[in-house]
Amino acid sequence: MQHSSIITLTTDFGLQDHYVSAMKGVILSISENVRFVDVSHQIPPQDIMAAAWVVRNSSVYFPSGTIHLVVVDPGVGTNRDPVALKIKNQIFVGPDNGIFSLIADEFDYEAWKLTNQDYWARNPSNTFHGRDLFSPVAAHIANGVPLNKLGERITKLVTYRWAVPITDSDGVQGWIIHIDRFGNLVSNIPEEMIRDTIGQSRFRIYVGNTILNEIVTTFDSVPDGEPVAYIGSSGTLEIAINKGNAKEMLGVQKGAQISIFIQK
Amino acid sequence: MQHSSIITLTTDFGLQDHYVSAMKGVILSISENVRFVDVSHQIPPQDIMAAAWVVRNSSVYFPSGTIHLVVVDPGVGTNRDPVALKIKNQIFVGPDNGIFSLIADEFDYEAWKLTNQDYWARNPSNTFHGRDLFSPVAAHIANGVPLNKLGERITKLVTYRWAVPITDSDGVQGWIIHIDRFGNLVSNIPEEMIRDTIGQSRFRIYVGNTILNEIVTTFDSVPDGEPVAYIGSSGTLEIAINKGNAKEMLGVQKGAQISIFIQK
Amino acid sequence: MQHSSIITLTTDFGLQDHYVSAMKGVILSISENVRFVDVSHQIPPQDIMAAAWVVRNSSVYFPSGTIHLVVVDPGVGTNRDPVALKIKNQIFVGPDNGIFSLIADEFDYEAWKLTNQDYWARNPSNTFHGRDLFSPVAAHIANGVPLNKLGERITKLVTYRWAVPITDSDGVQGWIIHIDRFGNLVSNIPEEMIRDTIGQSRFRIYVGNTILNEIVTTFDSVPDGEPVAYIGSSGTLEIAINKGNAKEMLGVQKGAQISIFIQK
Repeated sequence: MQHSSIITLTTDFGLQDHYVSAMKGVILSISENVRFVDVSHQIPPQDIMAAAWVVRNSSVYFPSGTIHLVVVDPGVGTNRDPVALKIKNQIFVGPDNGIFSLIADEFDYEAWKLTNQDYWARNPSNTFHGRDLFSPVAAHIANGVPLNKLGERITKLVTYRWAVPITDSDGVQGWIIHIDRFGNLVSNIPEEMIRDTIGQSRFRIYVGNTILNEIVTTFDSVPDGEPVAYIGSSGTLEIAINKGNAKEMLGVQKGAQISIFIQK
Repeated sequence: MQHSSIITLTTDFGLQDHYVSAMKGVILSISENVRFVDVSHQIPPQDIMAAAWVVRNSSVYFPSGTIHLVVVDPGVGTNRDPVALKIKNQIFVGPDNGIFSLIADEFDYEAWKLTNQDYWARNPSNTFHGRDLFSPVAAHIANGVPLNKLGERITKLVTYRWAVPITDSDGVQGWIIHIDRFGNLVSNIPEEMIRDTIGQSRFRIYVGNTILNEIVTTFDSVPDGEPVAYIGSSGTLEIAINKGNAKEMLGVQKGAQISIFIQK
Repeated sequence: MQHSSIITLTTDFGLQDHYVSAMKGVILSISENVRFVDVSHQIPPQDIMAAAWVVRNSSVYFPSGTIHLVVVDPGVGTNRDPVALKIKNQIFVGPDNGIFSLIADEFDYEAWKLTNQDYWARNPSNTFHGRDLFSPVAAHIANGVPLNKLGERITKLVTYRWAVPITDSDGVQGWIIHIDRFGNLVSNIPEEMIRDTIGQSRFRIYVGNTILNEIVTTFDSVPDGEPVAYIGSSGTLEIAINKGNAKEMLGVQKGAQISIFIQK
């Protein structure tokens, strides 16, 4: 572990309250040289899959040794387990409620159930494990405490996942799993699935109130204000409006269907 | 003072403007190795007591030597005094307008009125003391300048406080002093007051449009969507909806009454 | 270049998505000791001039050697050029689309078009140059790579600017170019222009639904709830409501006219 560990934070705590800074204060009191990177504190309250999406898509860019602290925890104080994971020499700490579903589905992992209260705050609250359990554990990991000391190995995690896209001879049926700040619609249809299923055939993409018939490489392949389909920076099909907001203009909400039909 | 001081920032400046980063640039230009922790920049504009609440509840978790820069300053440029406080080996810097009421009411403090303009920006503006006065002072403190050089000792601070909860033989009358991002209602009734006043008696809690008759330890002591009373992570009585938003569902605003009546 | 460079970040990516943290992860993977300062990630989507304003008003406060990474990039993937600028021993990296207009108009600069793909991510996406081009370049600059290795010198940048205030014998005609979180109205009329044009004459300021006839030094020169004109912390005429919100109370939007008429 390097001298000055990086701890990223992903929560649904927002930034108007003191919750995130209380966690950082606890961590700095245990491991004074850690450096923080705030991934997001604006996960929609208690939205486990939104957290899983953000964790997967940010963590893959971080260097070896990074510790990712993830606290979206609607079941705090109940019988969901606190866990730590090791994936590709990065560490993930948080509740085992599905927030690690995507990253653990994609990569090999080792996992520990956090049971050793020596590394928690004394008298932990039942409603703020982010401060009293997960932050101290992350700080001790930054200090070099081996994961084996924090609890016991487990082999299964809670899985909780989106419906996987469906393919058949008609094409692909997927879903909009994320809508970003620009109103861009992120689907769960990977580039390879489109290549394998559609190949060189002509096709139509149906989403919200629009139909598209090509996948291009840049937003400005279409005029300003027009919808455009492209492979997004996360490797899946996305729909945007060139210099506009696709969520608003196409009337699409998270969870909406997106279909690619082969033209026969 | 350690080599790389921690400076926390609490303001009502938001993050769409350049104000916070201008403060950080000023500080780094004076003390290049400081590390920042943003507590909140989303204090409701000019809400002194919201700042006091956040400052109290975050600062207690930070290590010795931390400098807390707090700029919620509706009276900037007027005759309110700029001050620095020392509390439990942490330093607080900001306007003396009540933002330090809660922390200074709870703990012993030493205080200085900041009068030595050698440690301010040259030609400070009248409207942005955060950048031109408080940030330079915080940076010089990080560099090891003793507080005695920054101004003169004072013994009284502006106090500005919420009504204290009232107890009598009927029970406790308190107020909702904070509502967090989840819509959880935070009251000013401390756990000990409930223990001392209610003891083992049966009781009813009245808040907004609901009545509760027990205080439990975890949200899921009640079914999803039901209201629940518990001692929150700040040590006072809170009301939440299990996996819901109490502010919206119970129709409660900050400042609302919350009463605990003993059942006789 | 000092051991632990400061990289500031200004984007329109918001903080609910993973985009900003992906950039930080990429940077830390190349230059592990950099320190980040988030200027703003809440630039209105694709608002180039809002970015230019924030960049100008924050960067001037940062120390020599700071690297400013600015990604507001509606033309990502098209033929706008990626650039790096050197201004007063600070470095600016981003798309050449006008976001550097204000800082480059005010100060001398040297500029390079970023053409050397050795310093980019392999297989960069067409829709996220912030992650795949600008972040790696900023990280390599932090590591000491000279700007001459990153591309070729250029002498002109895209300029894109607000209408300049107009003066004549009647007075000054300017525009509201920014409205901050408090609802304060920031104009583009500099203090010196008022001094030179109005001098000691009596005058009236027209903005939104109000008329003012003096410029004062502190908000509380007027009663609470009244409008007040003053020279703001950026050196231009501003209009506020003492302890209120001028945007709402005066019905003013960004881009509105503000006029100072000499009383003859």
